[in-house]
Amino acid sequence: MKGLDTAARLFDQLATETADPPGVTRASFGSGEAIAHAMIVAEAKRIGLDYHHDAIGNLYVTLKGLNRESPCLMMGSHLDSVPHGGNFDGAAGVLAGLAILEALTDTPTPPFDITLMAIRAEEMIWFPEHYLGSRAAFGLLPADSGTRLKRSDTGMTLEQHMQEAGFKPELIAQHRPTLTASGIRCFLELHIEQGPVLAELDIPVGIVTAIRGNKRYRYCSISGQTTHAGGVPRRCRRDAVLAGAELIGTLETEWIKLESTGKDLVLTVGEFFTDQNHHGITKVPGHVSFTLDFRSADSATLQAFDEQLIDTAKRISEERQVNVELGNSTHAADAPMDPELIQELTDAANRCNIPIHHMASGGGHDSAVFASQGIPTAMLFVRNYHGSHNPDERMDRPDFETACHVMLEWIRRYIEVRS
Amino acid sequence: MKGLDTAARLFDQLATETADPPGVTRASFGSGEAIAHAMIVAEAKRIGLDYHHDAIGNLYVTLKGLNRESPCLMMGSHLDSVPHGGNFDGAAGVLAGLAILEALTDTPTPPFDITLMAIRAEEMIWFPEHYLGSRAAFGLLPADSGTRLKRSDTGMTLEQHMQEAGFKPELIAQHRPTLTASGIRCFLELHIEQGPVLAELDIPVGIVTAIRGNKRYRYCSISGQTTHAGGVPRRCRRDAVLAGAELIGTLETEWIKLESTGKDLVLTVGEFFTDQNHHGITKVPGHVSFTLDFRSADSATLQAFDEQLIDTAKRISEERQVNVELGNSTHAADAPMDPELIQELTDAANRCNIPIHHMASGGGHDSAVFASQGIPTAMLFVRNYHGSHNPDERMDRPDFETACHVMLEWIRRYIEVRS
Repeated sequence: MKGLDTAARLFDQLATETADPPGVTRASFGSGEAIAHAMIVAEAKRIGLDYHHDAIGNLYVTLKGLNRESPCLMMGSHLDSVPHGGNFDGAAGVLAGLAILEALTDTPTPPFDITLMAIRAEEMIWFPEHYLGSRAAFGLLPADSGTRLKRSDTGMTLEQHMQEAGFKPELIAQHRPTLTASGIRCFLELHIEQGPVLAELDIPVGIVTAIRGNKRYRYCSISGQTTHAGGVPRRCRRDAVLAGAELIGTLETEWIKLESTGKDLVLTVGEFFTDQNHHGITKVPGHVSFTLDFRSADSATLQAFDEQLIDTAKRISEERQVNVELGNSTHAADAPMDPELIQELTDAANRCNIPIHHMASGGGHDSAVFASQGIPTAMLFVRNYHGSHNPDERMDRPDFETACHVMLEWIRRYIEVRS
Repeated sequence: MKGLDTAARLFDQLATETADPPGVTRASFGSGEAIAHAMIVAEAKRIGLDYHHDAIGNLYVTLKGLNRESPCLMMGSHLDSVPHGGNFDGAAGVLAGLAILEALTDTPTPPFDITLMAIRAEEMIWFPEHYLGSRAAFGLLPADSGTRLKRSDTGMTLEQHMQEAGFKPELIAQHRPTLTASGIRCFLELHIEQGPVLAELDIPVGIVTAIRGNKRYRYCSISGQTTHAGGVPRRCRRDAVLAGAELIGTLETEWIKLESTGKDLVLTVGEFFTDQNHHGITKVPGHVSFTLDFRSADSATLQAFDEQLIDTAKRISEERQVNVELGNSTHAADAPMDPELIQELTDAANRCNIPIHHMASGGGHDSAVFASQGIPTAMLFVRNYHGSHNPDERMDRPDFETACHVMLEWIRRYIEVRS
């Protein structure tokens, strides 16, 4: 397949030019991301494709169709990475799209535009807002985002970073979209799997059924009373760690129960810590801080689990005479993928004799934004080892190429059917 | 009672001269402790009592008896405090002893010496070794203690601090005692209660039945695997926090079970923390560190709980595919108080119409060392509010004086019976 050598070369080039050992760093609206964008622009020129950046900074590379007014078929993913991250998270989807476009240059002009979108700023570690680039493109970011959001490494605002890169943050405040749902017939994102499921199953490609919604509590705490570890009997203790252990244990039990009835859920208590300035082996801990992140492909399950959490926090507060504070939470809705596209991708894989696995996506992706706009959306996962967001992530070239074959097979049939 | 005004004046003087807001600081072999020792020496001179420091730094104030070869009746406690601690923990026992000696100057010369020992370095926060001053006096410290133990605030060794204060650390290495069990007929320590039991019962004085032994694990950890909070299904997770929550929950359940069968136990997980440099709300936590401290007045219960802990750690390691490491532990044996002395003190309180409560001591005390040497030992607790080891500890003067009355009544009868 034409284009795959280009992708292979660009993976190497990206790894070299954005290296920040261990791994790579491509900060949102930072130099690594800019290098990656420039690389795609150079290839678009070489291949003879149309390209432009929108006022937000997203890059579009287009193979022009016969009817340029007809909604385009869009592929895409993001080019930023976490600090010292792996080379494949995000970039794989962009390079797959570029490979497909290059492959399609050998076929008759399609009936509509086929567009690759290289999305800005997907990784939430830089600016604390989900899917920044794609949401900005649809005019969906809160109006104050430009001045409110500060990049975690520089402390500079999103506005300052966008201006520095030559883009127009004022569009965010005006909620002015650079993309409209009516202009996109469907959206397809290829991405590495961030978990171990495909590796465990020994299957190269996954077809995503839904992107899990999540609920996040960043600032949970339990306050009880710091007292003497020896002299205070159990009935007089207001122990924050014992209360926290009960809360976590209860939530885990509920999780197992939900799973046993076939519900989709994952729960993570990523941070849990007594106060380093005041704790000690001989003190009953009077305070503990923690975070909660839970996700489900089913909004009712997410909601039910949230209610269970709130009830449990209340019960434990009363029973243990402590104050379980959950604090502010954020919520990202789940995003079901388009059933028709799922079927078409499954059929395409079958035609190519490529084994696939249907699965929910635990991580959030820009595809959730496209789906939320009513655009038929689908995702392909590529088998990946050692997780993502770390320098050890490993997507093998044959697996990437297998997924590209499925994608190209699907697009060809998609065009054929609609020509 | 003569001597109580002296005690009241010295409490004020101690609070002023060792003030380190909030609270007081009297570091082991530090300036605050030295000030306190000098204060007791000055009073001994004024009252006309014999006094000397031993080569370790412990201070002895003696009302000479008729037979100076006969074993002495010893009272005592420590003069050091935790940093920013309360004024009463330790000092109350020394000032009570001084008040008793002053009161006894009005009575006929006793048949044997009555000695107050102001003990060095009881608070383990300064040097990581239990009951340092009293154990050194009996030649019980590990030989390398002088060079191995470093003070937590200065980083200087015990040897350096002792030399600086004019004492002889070489005695520790030689295991040379400055006290022998045969020279002491009994030991009595008055101390503030470190828990809320007497305050809750509205009783001013407690008589200690036993000092709880303890087992401490300072360096526990659980290692699993740090992975993606969204993409990794439950069956693939090796979550250190969930494993820790189960461990703590299991131990608490066992604690409740033991209590329900009348066993004495307290359990504290004073520190429990994910790694601040690597944890995050969207990462499955791969590591957690924690401490365990459990105490019992009954060595069999302590042992059984320890075995339960080790079994649970092993089971969780296997079931959750994590590595629960308990690390090194320290053990302080429980110390039963002398039944005859307990009865005599109870009788003395009854004669004074003072309500008392029999209770175990959760905190460790120098009395445990005297008991371990076969010396009949007893402790009186004084009601205290807000716990100890903090600037808010509060022992009311009437309660202290009530306890001194019981102590004096007991000593008078003790002398009378043995004269």
